Amino acid sequence: MRTEKGSLIVISGPSGVGKSTVIAKAMEGLDNMVFSISATTRRPRPGEQDGVHYYFVTGEKFDSMIKNGELLEHAEYVGNHYGTPKAPIMENLERGVSVILDIEVQGAGQVKRSMPDSVSVFILPPSFKELEKRLRGRNQDSEEKIKGRLQTARQECGHAGEYDYIIVNDDVETAADELRSIIIAAGCMTKNRINTASDIFLEM
Amino acid sequence: MRTEKGSLIVISGPSGVGKSTVIAKAMEGLDNMVFSISATTRRPRPGEQDGVHYYFVTGEKFDSMIKNGELLEHAEYVGNHYGTPKAPIMENLERGVSVILDIEVQGAGQVKRSMPDSVSVFILPPSFKELEKRLRGRNQDSEEKIKGRLQTARQECGHAGEYDYIIVNDDVETAADELRSIIIAAGCMTKNRINTASDIFLEM
Repeated sequence: MRTEKGSLIVISGPSGVGKSTVIAKAMEGLDNMVFSISATTRRPRPGEQDGVHYYFVTGEKFDSMIKNGELLEHAEYVGNHYGTPKAPIMENLERGVSVILDIEVQGAGQVKRSMPDSVSVFILPPSFKELEKRLRGRNQDSEEKIKGRLQTARQECGHAGEYDYIIVNDDVETAADELRSIIIAAGCMTKNRINTASDIFLEM
Repeated sequence: MRTEKGSLIVISGPSGVGKSTVIAKAMEGLDNMVFSISATTRRPRPGEQDGVHYYFVTGEKFDSMIKNGELLEHAEYVGNHYGTPKAPIMENLERGVSVILDIEVQGAGQVKRSMPDSVSVFILPPSFKELEKRLRGRNQDSEEKIKGRLQTARQECGHAGEYDYIIVNDDVETAADELRSIIIAAGCMTKNRINTASDIFLEM
């Protein structure tokens, strides 16, 4: 059987919604799946490693990546630049590996326009009260920063309707199972099973 | 939170592909899910119960159901009539229960046209050689009947490309997991999460 192309899964959700946990749990036990690593000009948070969580680059390097067309999308977010290196995504999809892209709303829109076959997922909090509780619970931001994040969250969540799928992260196991299901279903879409189906017919 | 509508999942696949087993396994552990019971004029096979596997009806009764608009689709298959009672499906979808419809290719096409939001899935055998082996293995049909089923199978499988999703039943656990994923993903489609999403916003 010939290999099918991988799927590009674009995921957005407000800060504090638990996106990383949901994605990590959904990816457990999924084969042929990689996480796209973004380039960013923001400074690493404690524990974040270059080349693992992000490619941490300078503003100058980021500008040259834009200029050379090396980014699938790029956006500014809370004063920092984020971008998605194009080449590793294309190589993975071509050899049948699916790619998860965790990006904010602006970037997701750019990706959907340039790659309409991508599958987009928005993760909503069960309520904004709960989101506020989670943001405070991680003891990471000042009061002012939390207020800013909440305001951004409301704006971002207003774009949920533009995505193919919506997941509500009330219970993390359910949310992860839903994301995993969306990823598996993407691989079963008829357009992604054309090689397989025609090989079955050729064997007749 | 308000309830979302259920999804209508339309499943086809040739005789002997293992559809019933895949569906039964996929439905394990899925809540809010029922199996649509077809009306048929064919005679019960050993073990089949009226009102459980099918509504076994006479040709006269079947004709009156057509005349009264009580069927969502109906078709003739290997000399027998099959039809899908409309009312129970609509009632289930309305109260948030998803419905699985196991029907042949003609009926699936009718349903997709009258209910374009339904999600359609075709189950293919890994090869026609394997399908032949499975048909012989169940020791149920005469040689002539097996040849007829194989010919019908080839025709039916030619319609796989018209379905939203294709599953290849090579390994039954994988196939069932894929079907379960497609069903869960259907419930996460943005159009099926509108009530939930707007309730989250109204709580702001």
